[in-house]
Amino acid sequence: MIYESMCNALKDATISIKDINAIFVSNFLSGPLNKQLHLNALVASLLPGMNVPIVRIEAACASSGAALKQAMYAIGSLKTVMVIGVEKMTQSIGVKQIDALAMASDQLLDQSQGLTLPASYGLIAQQYMRKYEIDHKVLEEVSFINHKNANLNPLAHFYHKEVTKEMINTSPLIASPLNLYDCSPISDGAVAIIISSEKSGDRDIEILASHFVTDSISITQRGNLTSFKASRLAAKKAYREAEVDMKDIDILEVHDCFTIGELLALEDLGFCNSGEASTLVEDGYVLPSGDLPVNTDGGLIGNGHPIGATGLAQVYEVVTQIRGEAGLRQIANVGVGMTQNIGGVGGTAAVTILGED
Amino acid sequence: MIYESMCNALKDATISIKDINAIFVSNFLSGPLNKQLHLNALVASLLPGMNVPIVRIEAACASSGAALKQAMYAIGSLKTVMVIGVEKMTQSIGVKQIDALAMASDQLLDQSQGLTLPASYGLIAQQYMRKYEIDHKVLEEVSFINHKNANLNPLAHFYHKEVTKEMINTSPLIASPLNLYDCSPISDGAVAIIISSEKSGDRDIEILASHFVTDSISITQRGNLTSFKASRLAAKKAYREAEVDMKDIDILEVHDCFTIGELLALEDLGFCNSGEASTLVEDGYVLPSGDLPVNTDGGLIGNGHPIGATGLAQVYEVVTQIRGEAGLRQIANVGVGMTQNIGGVGGTAAVTILGED
Repeated sequence: MIYESMCNALKDATISIKDINAIFVSNFLSGPLNKQLHLNALVASLLPGMNVPIVRIEAACASSGAALKQAMYAIGSLKTVMVIGVEKMTQSIGVKQIDALAMASDQLLDQSQGLTLPASYGLIAQQYMRKYEIDHKVLEEVSFINHKNANLNPLAHFYHKEVTKEMINTSPLIASPLNLYDCSPISDGAVAIIISSEKSGDRDIEILASHFVTDSISITQRGNLTSFKASRLAAKKAYREAEVDMKDIDILEVHDCFTIGELLALEDLGFCNSGEASTLVEDGYVLPSGDLPVNTDGGLIGNGHPIGATGLAQVYEVVTQIRGEAGLRQIANVGVGMTQNIGGVGGTAAVTILGED
Repeated sequence: MIYESMCNALKDATISIKDINAIFVSNFLSGPLNKQLHLNALVASLLPGMNVPIVRIEAACASSGAALKQAMYAIGSLKTVMVIGVEKMTQSIGVKQIDALAMASDQLLDQSQGLTLPASYGLIAQQYMRKYEIDHKVLEEVSFINHKNANLNPLAHFYHKEVTKEMINTSPLIASPLNLYDCSPISDGAVAIIISSEKSGDRDIEILASHFVTDSISITQRGNLTSFKASRLAAKKAYREAEVDMKDIDILEVHDCFTIGELLALEDLGFCNSGEASTLVEDGYVLPSGDLPVNTDGGLIGNGHPIGATGLAQVYEVVTQIRGEAGLRQIANVGVGMTQNIGGVGGTAAVTILGED
């Protein structure tokens, strides 16, 4: 997967691997699941004789958002770098996936209390639904839209899989109130992107801003469960650096690891006030035909959630849409796009804004 | 451990945590051993309300050498950053330590063949001893010197523990020809250092160069087992950037995860030709009283090897020696020092050169 994504990225950029000065590898769970750490040297094995600096970055489900930022730090001393996100999750030769994923949460405060990721997001959804008096139907609508988008995305986990409203609302309960279709799937995947300080051609897309912010790891340490402070802060920094605001964003990719995550994202990124995201969903604002198409690639729910690759998959979708190369899911006139990548239960948030160069 | 090391570093630098713009956390095994990933958010939990960017770097046993380089990339956009190395290894709530450590090697090519780290370094030692016709006595001498140095280091794993030549040469076989005392111990530890682009006072030490290089992960993919190409390349880059050469180095910290590693290091860093390192050891060149004191803190063998902290512990020793604050183990007139930190079996090598500011 890593090799294929690297080759595709180099081909797309029409450069050679010899032009790459450093590689940043994002991965979350290769140790617990694949018994494989030291991924930087594993990638080096694919590139005999290259001996470039390669490093692995981990920040739970926001690993690739964080890796992108490390690459941005390096651009300045280096000319051209590659960022690879990868996760192989569908088979484990180590611990069970649900236990490995829980390592994003505090071992003492969360894991030992049974607060797996679905359980934590279940609690958030419970609080949110009670606080703002919304029905589970809104979450079902998020799932429906994202699966419909994925249906048009040849690279999506759920490509060409029709998911009906009935399938969604009759799906089994996972962690109340979240059902199976409220959850993103266990996926394998890899994404590679190339960042350069030099112009390469008219398909270049500019990173207008890239920020990530950390917050306490455990939801037991948060004052408010229905908003992620790290997400709000990262967005604020990104808007400021990119010198754009919400109304300039033509397309948005958010971290819908669970459907409730999309509602929180819309609010934390400033697209509506707290408790109003359900209206944006119900009114079709987030549809491909709406004012702000969200997760046109299917999001984590429909495109899949190969953890270490997810943040870069979001960037790939925005780049593809800005370039006008998104095929059947193409949105008209995309100039600026934004991605939001969350680690754990809001412990890390990475926000990137991209635009035409 | 993280908190204690952070507080000590801040106190030493006489600055506040509010002056820190980003934190880089180096750790290798917290997932497999402690069931805890997402360490960047765990560190954020220790700093309520700070919400700075924190990221975790992993490059097997060279994690902290690699993290230091990431911090150097960030210096330029940021003023002051902290690098923390941490590993909690003595207890595991996950897999066994030996299995976790093996994740530094290729799962398919090495681990499944029984090539744990001691086994791999055992093969290297076998080849080295045969090729250069040296006796195990040389390795025993490395162990003896490093334990003697550790005996004077209050922060060492083997502080105030006298290790005799008899204890060393009668210790049980681990992976032929390596005995127990050829191996670094399983340690807990944390180190924090602060790097700033601004001068802070007359105790400042300058990072003259910091480089890391990757090579193929598996020893089955190497042409030569008795030299680490990544180490040679990283040293070459570091000498060039620092504008110093071997004879300018007053003190050296090398990655003696196993005694044989020290011999390879002396050769790969250019202090002698291939096969001649045993002479440097036998002639007392590497003793505190010698021309090039090596591993004055005890090295990994004597100081301990809390993996994610090791590269930074080396930097701490060089800084302490240059400052003249090393107490009973102080070497006279240390102006320039070098560290070499190896990941896995030479898949990653990080070399840092430090000098008086």
